Amino acid sequence: MLKQNERLDYLECRDLRIIQDKNGYAFTTDAVLLANFVKASAKERLLDFGTGSGIVPILCSAKTNAKELIGIELQDRLADMAERSVAYNNLFPRVKIIKGDIKDAPALFGAGTFDVVTSNPPYMTYSGEKGAASEEDICRREVFITVAELMESAGKMLKFGGRAYFVYKAERLTDLLAAMRKNGIEPKSLTLIYPKAIKEADTVIVEGRKGGKPGLRIRKPLVICRQDGSYTAEAAKIYKPCERGGEKR
Amino acid sequence: MLKQNERLDYLECRDLRIIQDKNGYAFTTDAVLLANFVKASAKERLLDFGTGSGIVPILCSAKTNAKELIGIELQDRLADMAERSVAYNNLFPRVKIIKGDIKDAPALFGAGTFDVVTSNPPYMTYSGEKGAASEEDICRREVFITVAELMESAGKMLKFGGRAYFVYKAERLTDLLAAMRKNGIEPKSLTLIYPKAIKEADTVIVEGRKGGKPGLRIRKPLVICRQDGSYTAEAAKIYKPCERGGEKR
Repeated sequence: MLKQNERLDYLECRDLRIIQDKNGYAFTTDAVLLANFVKASAKERLLDFGTGSGIVPILCSAKTNAKELIGIELQDRLADMAERSVAYNNLFPRVKIIKGDIKDAPALFGAGTFDVVTSNPPYMTYSGEKGAASEEDICRREVFITVAELMESAGKMLKFGGRAYFVYKAERLTDLLAAMRKNGIEPKSLTLIYPKAIKEADTVIVEGRKGGKPGLRIRKPLVICRQDGSYTAEAAKIYKPCERGGEKR
Repeated sequence: MLKQNERLDYLECRDLRIIQDKNGYAFTTDAVLLANFVKASAKERLLDFGTGSGIVPILCSAKTNAKELIGIELQDRLADMAERSVAYNNLFPRVKIIKGDIKDAPALFGAGTFDVVTSNPPYMTYSGEKGAASEEDICRREVFITVAELMESAGKMLKFGGRAYFVYKAERLTDLLAAMRKNGIEPKSLTLIYPKAIKEADTVIVEGRKGGKPGLRIRKPLVICRQDGSYTAEAAKIYKPCERGGEKR
């Protein structure tokens, strides 16, 4: 199952494993956080934009009852790894990985066909040549898709009343909220993530509703680490340090 | 100095007093909070939109070194009270109250002439007849001005690089951030206000910069009350319960 330079990481969640490159891009705690905020019932279909290793649909297969979970990923090598991770965990066909461009999602799956859209979008801007971008650049930076474009696609894919869950950098909260609203996904719930103590939040989780009425609730924030660097009780429930995998915060 | 049904409230700040109606609209703790976040140097001019009792420019006259502080208020009776409060505290001509419409500010004062704009805008929508709106409705609801219109005026009045400070309801954060950005006031700093314990924030303070680059910092939040209802140490620094005035939270 593993190719050269790959490792099998333990997710500490129902014995799930995930294939990742030993040296390349690895999922971050942001994706694990996001998966913990997603709600999806047994009748619902979930689409994850820019799924990378497949971490969000794989975790959400255990953490929700979603009927079907599809991850779309632009990069061949990541899509291939994610597909093998799905196979390793015997999650196919409930979980599927599709190699493709987020912007083509309406053509690939049909508009308005998902109850839930999730994404941990590239959150940094990119000003270099597209051809010079590394695999990691493409995951983390707006090389092939901006947050505005991603929200446009999310707005198209959601059913009326459907929900979207995004994890994003706090410093770009205005971009995120404005792009969500512009595409008919009204921000309904905001959770701030503080890396250590309640001083300055670095990450946000936003839940939106397609066609929802304005009205944002600012939820209880989440603090990840204590002063000594150990996880707080709330964060430990979501993830523990994973010796063999997962990028540390 | 006092007219019928008016009272003189103590602000617990350098012996400042403010005239308010015994039964009508009174300033809220939101305005006091706002004044505590405002920074203005001795060379700077400040304009407060919808100044009501004049609470923000009056407090900011003590809490900042601003050269000039102007409050604009649409309602005759409130503008008259605010003007007498300014006189009572001997703050004229450093503090001035102008009776007028926020939308006319560019015509009244000239566009791009202020370093700082502050406001505690009406934060609730209004669907009734304008003629049926009470004095309090006009202060609290979008009877004569929406947040979008107020931001348009704020964007026009600020110098390039100037700062804006707004206090607003948390549930309308998306409206606020989107309207600020649309009018060239980039949100730079967000502080969440929690009424009691860090559970759900009800109020936000946002600082923006005219022509600023994107990049929002989410600051340490402020909790107002302890479980027993007394002020936290941080809130007590900003305001104490005012027996003779100020609306209680």
